[in-house]
Amino acid sequence: MARIGIFDSGVGGLTVQRAILEALPSADTLYLGDTARVPYGTKSAETVTQYSLRMGRFLASQGIDLLVVACNTASAVALPALRDELNVPILGVVEPGAREAARLSRTGRIGVIGTQGTVRSGAYQEAIRRSRADAEVIAQPCPLFVPLAEEGWTDPDDEIVRGVVHRYLAPLATAGIDVLVLGCTHYPLLKAAIARELPGITLVDSAEAIAVEVRARVGGEGGPDGTHRFFVTDLPERFTPIAGRFLGRPVELAEHVDV
Amino acid sequence: MARIGIFDSGVGGLTVQRAILEALPSADTLYLGDTARVPYGTKSAETVTQYSLRMGRFLASQGIDLLVVACNTASAVALPALRDELNVPILGVVEPGAREAARLSRTGRIGVIGTQGTVRSGAYQEAIRRSRADAEVIAQPCPLFVPLAEEGWTDPDDEIVRGVVHRYLAPLATAGIDVLVLGCTHYPLLKAAIARELPGITLVDSAEAIAVEVRARVGGEGGPDGTHRFFVTDLPERFTPIAGRFLGRPVELAEHVDV
Repeated sequence: MARIGIFDSGVGGLTVQRAILEALPSADTLYLGDTARVPYGTKSAETVTQYSLRMGRFLASQGIDLLVVACNTASAVALPALRDELNVPILGVVEPGAREAARLSRTGRIGVIGTQGTVRSGAYQEAIRRSRADAEVIAQPCPLFVPLAEEGWTDPDDEIVRGVVHRYLAPLATAGIDVLVLGCTHYPLLKAAIARELPGITLVDSAEAIAVEVRARVGGEGGPDGTHRFFVTDLPERFTPIAGRFLGRPVELAEHVDV
Repeated sequence: MARIGIFDSGVGGLTVQRAILEALPSADTLYLGDTARVPYGTKSAETVTQYSLRMGRFLASQGIDLLVVACNTASAVALPALRDELNVPILGVVEPGAREAARLSRTGRIGVIGTQGTVRSGAYQEAIRRSRADAEVIAQPCPLFVPLAEEGWTDPDDEIVRGVVHRYLAPLATAGIDVLVLGCTHYPLLKAAIARELPGITLVDSAEAIAVEVRARVGGEGGPDGTHRFFVTDLPERFTPIAGRFLGRPVELAEHVDV
């Protein structure tokens, strides 16, 4: 069965791994989270590219059939450098999410939320317009969403959650979008609160969009469930419990790597 | 005049530099912010120590009379390793803040807020009890305070700010503390909101406490204002505008270093 390498700035990419395993339960996966240098979303494209290359090199050295860049920020800024250097097929989350948004929108007015790095890169904006030249894209960074999700404050009835979601997303509601791309791996944890703020607007989860693409790429033959290894750049102890919440199943102790 | 090296995980240490320059305007300073790997507060003591050593080595190589560890998390976990390796006097922010809190408390019930790394290390708890054996210390991590301050959401009338501050600090109010240590360089930006949540409780700003200690250490002779250089590990462009807000005066473009 296909052996898939997945990297992310931290734990968020496990939502992508989860979607991939739902689509392709027999895949073997290697997950690498850059927990020592997380987050990527507030940092320059140059620094994110440099870290992404270290992550990609490690996974490629383990022998993989496909490299999935689960981090939206890394997908937005580092794919060309990764493709230049690594001799393995590479998929990022931006293209599949952008295509799905372009397909689902009736009006062509599409919202994108993500980190500052993702929004500033313009990667989603360009990818959506490649799929649909008439699209009008309104992009909004939401820096507090990641800390909220990591703190576990995601309940749509929580007044802090409601307040933060409203402050970032009210301008998108006014702008008349009909589709919103959740352009950060953490944001699906806030999906219920986002949906309540934006009723009637279709939410696109990049994790689900890339899972469809991965399945199309490596084929969906059956077989027993795959095996999974987890690597992190900070100490593994604290990764394990949070990882279980993101992956939706227990995670065995991760291994530490210095890359 | 004394040449002081200051390092922090990012921009927050500029509040410490600001306090030092108010106490000692003629000091020359070298500031190094680890903006590529920020934050330290969510990471393991081992990783923070490794990064702190890289920061300290760089500043020591520039020729300094005193190294100030402005980051509370690094001060809490990395001072022994820094003192083992570097041949320069080193001051962290934990000891001065702890001593000031012990001195100001009437009841001996003292609160400490900080990052997860700082609170988990127990460094403030131990330092306060070294100054005052009967002290009872209640420590509370406040992970959302740093992103709030970096987003510029610090107005005490802001309902999100009020909600987050209340959620973290209401247990401290109930616990009957009379002094609270702001054990993270970002927290002074939220001082007005914290003071409103905890009326009558004395707030200790570690930045001010260490400035007094630095002045005592290097002497306060007059002379013309000192010169200041700024170094960062991520690209400098975005550092400059935020740095001005933290330092309270314009910051010249910082230099990039790869350490």
